[in-house]
Formats: sequence, structure tokens, C-alpha cells
Amino acid sequence: MVVWEIVALVAGLASIGVAGYLYRWVMRQENKNEGIAKYSELVQVGAATYLKRLFSVLAILALVITVVLLVAVGWRSAIAYIIGAACSAAAAYTGMIVSTRANGRVAWAARTGLSKALSVGFFSGAVMGLAVVGFALVGMTLLYMIFKDPEVVLGFSFGASSLALLAKAGGGIYTKTADIGADLVGKVELHLVEDDPRNPAVVADNVGDNVGDVAGMGADIFDSYVASVVSVMLLGAALPAFAGNPLYVLFPLILCAVGIVASLIGMVFVGRSKESEDPGRALNMGTIVTALIFAVLAVVIVNLLGFGEHTWGVLWPVLAGLAAGIVIGFTSDFFTDIDQKAVQSTAASAETGPALVILEGFSYGLLSIVPSVLGICIAMVASWLLATQFGVPGTYGVAIAAVGMLSITGMIMSSDAYGPIVDNAKGCAEYGKESEEVIAVCDRLDAAGNTAKAITKGFAIGAAALTVLALFHAYSETVGLTMMNLSSPAVVVGLFIGGMMPPLFSALLMLSVTKNANVMVEEIRRQFREIPGLLEGKAEPDSARCVDIAAAGALKELVLPAVLAMVSPVLVGIILGPEALGGFLAGSIVTGILFALLMANAGGLWDNGKKYIEDGAHGGKGSPAHDAAVIGDTVGDPFKDTAGPSLNTLITVMSLSATVFAPLIVKYALTLF
Amino acid sequence: MVVWEIVALVAGLASIGVAGYLYRWVMRQENKNEGIAKYSELVQVGAATYLKRLFSVLAILALVITVVLLVAVGWRSAIAYIIGAACSAAAAYTGMIVSTRANGRVAWAARTGLSKALSVGFFSGAVMGLAVVGFALVGMTLLYMIFKDPEVVLGFSFGASSLALLAKAGGGIYTKTADIGADLVGKVELHLVEDDPRNPAVVADNVGDNVGDVAGMGADIFDSYVASVVSVMLLGAALPAFAGNPLYVLFPLILCAVGIVASLIGMVFVGRSKESEDPGRALNMGTIVTALIFAVLAVVIVNLLGFGEHTWGVLWPVLAGLAAGIVIGFTSDFFTDIDQKAVQSTAASAETGPALVILEGFSYGLLSIVPSVLGICIAMVASWLLATQFGVPGTYGVAIAAVGMLSITGMIMSSDAYGPIVDNAKGCAEYGKESEEVIAVCDRLDAAGNTAKAITKGFAIGAAALTVLALFHAYSETVGLTMMNLSSPAVVVGLFIGGMMPPLFSALLMLSVTKNANVMVEEIRRQFREIPGLLEGKAEPDSARCVDIAAAGALKELVLPAVLAMVSPVLVGIILGPEALGGFLAGSIVTGILFALLMANAGGLWDNGKKYIEDGAHGGKGSPAHDAAVIGDTVGDPFKDTAGPSLNTLITVMSLSATVFAPLIVKYALTLF
Repeated sequence: MVVWEIVALVAGLASIGVAGYLYRWVMRQENKNEGIAKYSELVQVGAATYLKRLFSVLAILALVITVVLLVAVGWRSAIAYIIGAACSAAAAYTGMIVSTRANGRVAWAARTGLSKALSVGFFSGAVMGLAVVGFALVGMTLLYMIFKDPEVVLGFSFGASSLALLAKAGGGIYTKTADIGADLVGKVELHLVEDDPRNPAVVADNVGDNVGDVAGMGADIFDSYVASVVSVMLLGAALPAFAGNPLYVLFPLILCAVGIVASLIGMVFVGRSKESEDPGRALNMGTIVTALIFAVLAVVIVNLLGFGEHTWGVLWPVLAGLAAGIVIGFTSDFFTDIDQKAVQSTAASAETGPALVILEGFSYGLLSIVPSVLGICIAMVASWLLATQFGVPGTYGVAIAAVGMLSITGMIMSSDAYGPIVDNAKGCAEYGKESEEVIAVCDRLDAAGNTAKAITKGFAIGAAALTVLALFHAYSETVGLTMMNLSSPAVVVGLFIGGMMPPLFSALLMLSVTKNANVMVEEIRRQFREIPGLLEGKAEPDSARCVDIAAAGALKELVLPAVLAMVSPVLVGIILGPEALGGFLAGSIVTGILFALLMANAGGLWDNGKKYIEDGAHGGKGSPAHDAAVIGDTVGDPFKDTAGPSLNTLITVMSLSATVFAPLIVKYALTLF
Repeated sequence: MVVWEIVALVAGLASIGVAGYLYRWVMRQENKNEGIAKYSELVQVGAATYLKRLFSVLAILALVITVVLLVAVGWRSAIAYIIGAACSAAAAYTGMIVSTRANGRVAWAARTGLSKALSVGFFSGAVMGLAVVGFALVGMTLLYMIFKDPEVVLGFSFGASSLALLAKAGGGIYTKTADIGADLVGKVELHLVEDDPRNPAVVADNVGDNVGDVAGMGADIFDSYVASVVSVMLLGAALPAFAGNPLYVLFPLILCAVGIVASLIGMVFVGRSKESEDPGRALNMGTIVTALIFAVLAVVIVNLLGFGEHTWGVLWPVLAGLAAGIVIGFTSDFFTDIDQKAVQSTAASAETGPALVILEGFSYGLLSIVPSVLGICIAMVASWLLATQFGVPGTYGVAIAAVGMLSITGMIMSSDAYGPIVDNAKGCAEYGKESEEVIAVCDRLDAAGNTAKAITKGFAIGAAALTVLALFHAYSETVGLTMMNLSSPAVVVGLFIGGMMPPLFSALLMLSVTKNANVMVEEIRRQFREIPGLLEGKAEPDSARCVDIAAAGALKELVLPAVLAMVSPVLVGIILGPEALGGFLAGSIVTGILFALLMANAGGLWDNGKKYIEDGAHGGKGSPAHDAAVIGDTVGDPFKDTAGPSLNTLITVMSLSATVFAPLIVKYALTLF
């Protein structure tokens, strides 16, 4: 077994090493446009300011939780918790550093053509992708090598999740506070264009894109990746069918190592794509190649590992999870695709004003839940049945399917991080007054990012769903619940309260956005009023003040929902008992996934409805239909960038909190029923 | 026991008798304003046309289901099904007849002062309230007296639910098709006022108020009332703890009889209220008086019935249910109250445009889920614990608490039906060009209706939640499931699919509204274009054509969601097994209640936000803030009047369908897991 532990460790270290190499490569790329450089620096400073504040909030929170863990669970979990939070923070920080420095370089590279710019953009994203899987795998493997106890790795996962929750929700509030504030005064009141340098909130808006889409997303995927591995490790150790064979515990770490190798090969494939190719196609082909290589390697390695009669019982679920991820990814954009009926019909409704845009987009958002939920159910049933067919417990099958889906995270995350980087590059090119030609290249890169994003988003949701289901089983194994009976009133009450958590959490985040956006609007108005010559472009705005408002507001508003997420499972467990807590988790998983899909897809649909009109339909830019569609887009922004994406993290954190504090809950639970 | 059966029957017949007496009394009231009479007749004809169409769709659907029941369950259930649908239709029809004839009379009575007009309005509502409880109690009691089998009464309940689903969802689509169509062309394009007689869709809009709020609501409450009684009867017969004692089966019918007596006394109380009194207060006091009388009578009667040591074990849950209904009712309007923060803060956001109105209202709607869900959980836990304390099974406690809550339906429904009648009376008075003074009286009556509505709405949601929970237990008793284990993949998949149904159903209904509203808009534009002199008021619009479009569209769009609701539980049960069906029901109950609360409250909040601005805040009528608030209100309309209120019925129908077809499901279920 030690050989395989070393393999996992080496793969993780290699991933970090390649990330470092690519980072140096990206930094060697030039950017000679001074306007871009200046702008890029403002964003870098703003982002660093925000992250520093975020990490200081994290530090306080982590300290409190560490003390609680020390007292309630043990010193090993407490240490693992700190390491988990630190590794996740390191991954998020790396992503932020590279993305805020890469955007200008991509814009400059676009001068020399698509191929080079694509390479710079993609490899910048790859720094983030490889950092995420590298830090995660090294952290988990080392902790396992030292302590040989999945419970300790669970502490690592909880630490990673705590950071993810703060980063995702905080970034979400930050980015939309800045975005809505900038739009409401800039676009609506003063008719400035997007990214107009006179607008004091523009820098904050662009910082927001980085803190939300890069740092937040990185921490989120780090979190899912680790949680899926940990749930398999816990089940591998706890299920009697495996009789304590450590292979079942180590297995997910080995799969991650295989996934890293496959991702590295896939990245070479993308990096070699030709000038003539569609960059979106190149990214998607990279994902498929990675998946295929992973599948082949997995078949070989699993057969080498000595699972005996269980070989295909663990292998089929891995392959089923991988396939399900790709299928959900490639089909999940039906409701948000600009070429499909949902977007176009909503855009057509814009001719009657904003009300029907909202109604129709919201309705399609509700409808969009159906295919993804069915996909998740099929993946779950398939992996369960495939596992049990070969004598492997079904819960292990579901858990390992989640790891199968997430194994190629290195590649998926790289494609995903590419998106905001090239989006920002376009902003840089406009800010730095580059030629039409350069901007057109950036546009093509950006469109490719959106194509890739549809797939990675589907992957993220599918994987998060299977992961929390696996965690749910890990929780019940840890607590030793043989059943959670829906006929019991405690379980039903748990189900209701858990089901209520995602809407409650969403409400708190979105109300924070509307509250902070109003403060931001006041500040922007004040600057235009009090700084002489600002509107005429003769004076500079106080961007730092806006960055500060967005950051301070986001972090202040974040504390209540974050604490709620971590504390509520423990309270439910103690007051209503461990069985009710099972109901609580199940309820939160169901409504969490429903609301995540609803919000992500409705938001994406409104966004593309607006773009469809901007492309010339229904009167095009400036028409009344466009105004109506812009309102839909503004409503959709916090849906898809604040509340929706935080829900995955919320349900993971709640499941982890329940599992980590299980000993405490079992010991102190009141017996009401 | 026969004595008590006769008591229940007599109480039901008395209720119908008093309803008939009140109907004759209302019809004897005069209306000498010819303008009102003409308008009232248009609405009557429109409403009758719609109901005829609705009943013909129902007839086809009922025929199909009757045949299925005949084959799959037995002839007795099939007959009961038809009777249930017919009784529910009769109640809805009665309500519609009286409400469309009473509105003009209320307007005329307003000439002689508040007291008389309040009496006419309230007693018109009482016709509906008493018809609902009367038809329901007589139907159930007779079926039980003849067959002595709760399973047969279950067929009656399923019949009532089928009609309720059609009436509620169809009415919801109809009313908002007409409303949005009328507003978009009338108010937005041509700047006509509300209820302008030149607008071809005005009659359809007012017909819609009657078919949605009166007929739909009546069928809905009929449905909950019957379902709560049936679930107790089923549990009373099935639970081993009661050893086949028929008293436990008959008990809910006796409680209904007590509730009718209490309601009749409460009505006298309201009818005697003085001119000087606040009519809203009179209605609420009527509810409280009814509840107190019911409580006293229930204590006396239950002690007479011979429950022995179980006496307080059945009594406490009844009283807890009643108290919970009143508490939820009186507190549930915090988020929609015009004097509270949520409405006022959303109205303030209107100054920045419609986007923040939508976001903030939606967020408060999400937040509004919390207190009601906690209230429902507390009611459930309390009734469970109070029952088990005295040796009564907890499931019976929860079920009988729902009956306790719904026992005073006669009074609740009367107050509720009063609302749309006086609302329409105001429209009549304006249409008939009555004096300012008369319109002011109608305004006061209308405001009282809104106060009462907040409470009845809370009641309806609380009661529906407890009822479906009771049905859920009745289902598992009927199928003989001792447990539905959340660790089983089948149950989890059921939970997901069930949880997905309410959003899917909402999406289908709301997309129907947007689709039909677009057709309506075209027709209204066509009439203004092609009918010479229409805009100048020299020609009459073709109102019948608009009524027809709304009706045809609603009934066409209704079939898919209605069939889905009835068929999906059977499919899930057969494909994934009875245990998964339990998960399906639990999932649908949780998300159904969440979405029902979200949509009802967000819709109510936007409505009142608009009214708050119309009362003079933020620039008042015609200001940009008002325009923004109108958009919020238009989005909220299908939330609160189409999708939201149909969800209660949806989850009841699905629970009933599962229970009715339980024998079929158990027999043919595939064994996948």
C-alpha cells in the first residue's frame, strides 16, 4: 500500500510543480501596453486587499472552530482543520494572483493572434486547476500517511469547506454589490458604457469578477474534490463488507493521482491546438480526451490494485460517474443556450416589458431543474446497482462515482478558470484602447470560455450532488444509524428544517447584495457630485473607496449565514437527535440542489437573453426590449453569481459539520421522541 | 355510534339548509343600478361559460379515472370518486353563482351604510363557506354510513381533489391570463384605468377573480377539509392501537359537526356587528369566537364520547391544531403587511428601478418561509407528543390536529369568500358610477377583506401542511410500510423526484400564463384596431371573445400538469417501489410547502409594495418608483394567484393518488433495489 500512497503524493507534488512552472511561463509573457498595466495593477491591489480581509475573517472563524474541535473531537482533527483551511486558501490565493496578472498578458498576446493568446489564457487557468488538485491531494495524502485515519482527513475537508463557504458567499456578495452599483449609476443614470474608467466602481467590479469567479470557484471545487474523496475514505473504513482492508480507503487518492496524469496529458492537447481551430472546441476536446485517458488508465490501475471479485464493482461506478458528469455537462445548457428556445422565447417576451421576462425566465429556470435532477438520480441508481452487482456496498458505489466524476478536476477547473481570465482580458483590451482586431480575438476567446463554462458548470453540480449524497451516507455510517425512518416525526421535522436552510441562506445573501448595492450607489453618486471634473474625465475616481465598501459589506454580511451553516446541523442533532439530523441533511440536499439549479440556470438564461437582443434581435441594443432584458439580467446576477453557486458549498459544509461533530451529537443528543 | 353518525349527517344537512336560506336572503336584496346589473350579468355569463367548460374537462378526466378505479381498486371507490367530484363541483358552483350575483347587491347596499353592506357581503360569503362544509360532511358521512369503510371515503376525497386541482390551477391560469393581458394593453399601452369598460378583457379579468378566488379557493378548501378527515379515518381503522374501535374512525366527522355548530354561532356574531365597528375586526373576532366555542364544545363532546384513557390524547392535539392555525394565521402576514419593514424596504428599492424590487421581494419571500415552516414543525411535534403522552399513536395525533385546525372551515371560508365579493362590489360601484361615498364604503369593506385574508391564508397553509403529513402517514399505513429508510437509494431518488414536482408544476402553470397572456394581448390589440370607435367609447368591445380565449387557453394548458400530478405517484410506486413512493411524497411535501409560501408571500409583498407607493410614498402614483413597483406586482400575480395556491392541491392530489392506488402499486411494483 505504501507504494500507492507515494504515487498519490508524487502526483500531487507534480501537479503543484507543473502549476509553478506554468506560472513562471505566464509571468514571462510580456505586456507592453501601459494603460492595461496600470489597470491590471489597480485590480491586483483591490483583489489583494479583499483577500487579506477575507483571510483575516477566516482566521478568526478558524480559530474558534479549531478550539471547538480540540475540545469536542480531538487535537488531530483540529490540526487537520487548520491545514485544510490553509491549503484551500493557498489554492484560492494562487488562482487570484495568476488571474489578476494574466489578463493583461492575454490581451497583449492577442496582438500576435488567437493561438498564442489561447495558450496564455488556458495555461493561466491551468495554474489554478493544477494548484487546486495538487494542494488537495498532497494535503490529504500526507495526513493519511501520518495518521492512517479518515476521520482526521475529514477535519481537513471541513477546513477546506469553511474557507470555501466564506470565499464563495463573500465573493458572491462582493462581486454583485460592485456590479449592480456600477451599473445602476453608471449605465442607468449617467449612460456610461461598461468598464468606463470614470466610474468609481469599475475597478471594484473587475476585482469582483476575480474574487467571485476565480478565488470563489477554486475554493468551491477544492471543497467538492476533497469532500468526495473523504466520504469514500470514511465509507471504506467503516463498511463491514471491506473488513478493514486499507485499499478501499486509499482508493480515491489513487484515482485522484490517475486524474492528474490524465489532466496533464489533456492540457498538452489543448495547448497544441491550431490557430484555425475553434478555441471552444479545443477546450471541450481537451475535456473529452482527458476523460478517455482517465478511463483507460483507471481500468488498468484498478485491475492492478488487487480488488479481487470487487474489481468491476468499484470500476463500473467510477466510469459511470465520469460518463454522467460529461452527459450532464453537455446537456445542462439547453435552458441557457442562446440558440435554444428558452432563451429566445424569453427574449421575445421582452417586447412586452420586464415583467414577462422575469416570469418566463423564472419558469424556465424551474423547468431546468428536471433534466439535471433526473441525470443525478440515474447516475446514483446506476452506480448503486453496478456496485452491488459485484458485492460492493451501494453507498460505496455512489461515493466512488462522485470521485470518478471529480477525478478530472485538474482539467475541468483549468477550462473554467480560463473563462474569467479571458473575460477580463477583453476588459483590459478595451481599457487599454487596443485595436478592433485585438478585441475581436479576445471576443473569440471569451465565447470559447462561455462554451466551456456550460460543461464545467454541469460537472460541478452533478459532482456536488453525488458528493453530498456520499457524505450523507458517510454521516449515517459514522453515527452508526442503521436507518433514518421517514415515518418518524423527528426525521420529518428534520427534513423540513433542512429543506428550509437553502432558501434562508439564499435570502440572507441576496438581501446583503441589495443592501450593499444601495450603499455603493450612494458612494458613486457622492463621488460624481463631490469630485470636480470626474464626469468630464479630468479627475480620477476614488476606486479604492468602492473596493473597500464592497469588501467590508461582504465580509460583515457573511458572518451570520456562515455561522448558521456550521452551527445548525449541530443544534438539530442535539435537540432532535441524530436521526432527525439525517432528515435535515437529506432535506437540505434536495432543496439545495433544486435552488442551485434554478438560480444558476435562470440567471444564465436572462444573461443570454440580453445578449441575444444585443446581437440584434427585437430591436437590438438600446431598444425597449433591451431595457427589459437588462432588468432580467440584473435580477439574474445575484441568482447565478451570489446565491446559486454558494448553495453547493452550503450543503457540503452542513454535511461535513454533521459528520465532524457526530461524536459530540451522539453524546449530548436530547431524547425528545 | 349510529347516533353520532346521524349527528354528523344532520349538522351537514343543516349547513346546506342555512346556506340555502342565506342564498335566498341575499337574492332578495335589491340592486337598482342598471349599469351595475348589466355588468354583473356579463360577469355571470362569462363565469358560467367558463365553469361549463371546466366541468366538461372534468367529466372526461373523471370518466377515465373512474374506469381505472373500477378496474384497479373496485366499484365502491369508483362511485365514491364520482360523488366526491360532484360534491366538490357543487360547492364551487354554488360559490360562483352567489359571488357573481352578490357583488352588485353589496354595492347597492353600500348606499344605506356600512353595516348593511357588510351583512350582505359576509352572508354571501357564508353561503359558500356553509356549502363547502355541508356538501363535504354529508357526502363523507353518507358514504361511511353505507359502506362503513374509510377506503371508500378515500375515493370521495380523491374525487374532490381532482376537481380542486382543475379548478385551482385552471382558475389560476384563467385569471392571470386575463389580468396580465388587460393590464399590458390597457394600462401600459393605452393608459386606461383599471376596469375601464372599453377594455375588451375587463369582463374576463373580473370573471377571473371569481373563478380563481371563489370557485378555485372553495374547491381547494373542500379538498383539504375532506382529505384531513379521510386521513384520520384511515389511520383510525388501520392503527393496531385502536383495535378496530369505530369511534376513532367516526371521530373526525363528529368534530366537523361541532365545527359547523361553532361556525354558525360565530356567523351570527359577525352579522350583528355595529355600524361603528371596524369590519375587519368584526371578521377576525368572528373567527376567534368560533374557535373558542369550538374548543369548549370539543372538550365537552370528546369527554362524552367514551375515549377512556385516550380522551386527552385525542383532545389535546385537536386544541393544539386549532391554536396553531390561529397563531400561524395571525403571524404569517409579517412579510406581506403594508406597515412592516419587508414591504416598505422593497418599496424603497423601487426608486432604483424594477430589478431591486424583484430581488428584494423574492429574497423576503424566501425568508418568509422560515416562521411558517417552524410553526408547522412545532404544531406537528406538539400534537405528536401530546398524543403519545396519553397512549394515542403520534400519527393519529398529527392527523387529528389537522382536523382540529380545519374544523372551523365554515367560518374561515366565509370570511375568505367575503374578500373577492366585496372587491368585486367595489368594481361594480365604479362601473355603475356610484357616488364617492358609496365607493368609500366599498373600500372599507375591501380593506376588511384583506385583513381577514391574511389570517385565512395562514390557516389554509398550516392546515394543508398538517393534512398532507397525515395523508403521508395514512399512505404508509395503507401500504403497510413499517419504515421508509432514507439510507435506501430508492427513497433518496424518490425524495429528489418528488421534490422536483412542485417546481415543475409551477413552471408549467406559469408558462401557460405567459403564453396565453401573449395571445390575449394580440386579441385586445386587434379589437382596438378593427372595431371602429372602441377607443372613443362609441362601440362595445367583444368581451365574450376574450372570456373565451382565457377559458380555452387555461383548460388546454391544464391537462398536462393535472395528468402529471395523478399519474406520477403511480409510476414512481411501480418503477421504484412503495418505499420510494414514500420518499417521493415526503419530497413533494417539503418543496411544495416551501414554494407555496415563497410564491404566496413574495406575490403579496409586491402587491402591497405597489399599494404602499400608491398611498403616496416614494413619489406616489405615476412616479418612476410606482412603475417599478407595478412590474413587481405583475411578476407577483401568477406567483400568488396561479402557481402558489395550486401547490397545496398538487401535494394533496399526489398523496391521495398514492394512497388510492396503493393496492395496485404493491401488486405490480418492480423490485429494482
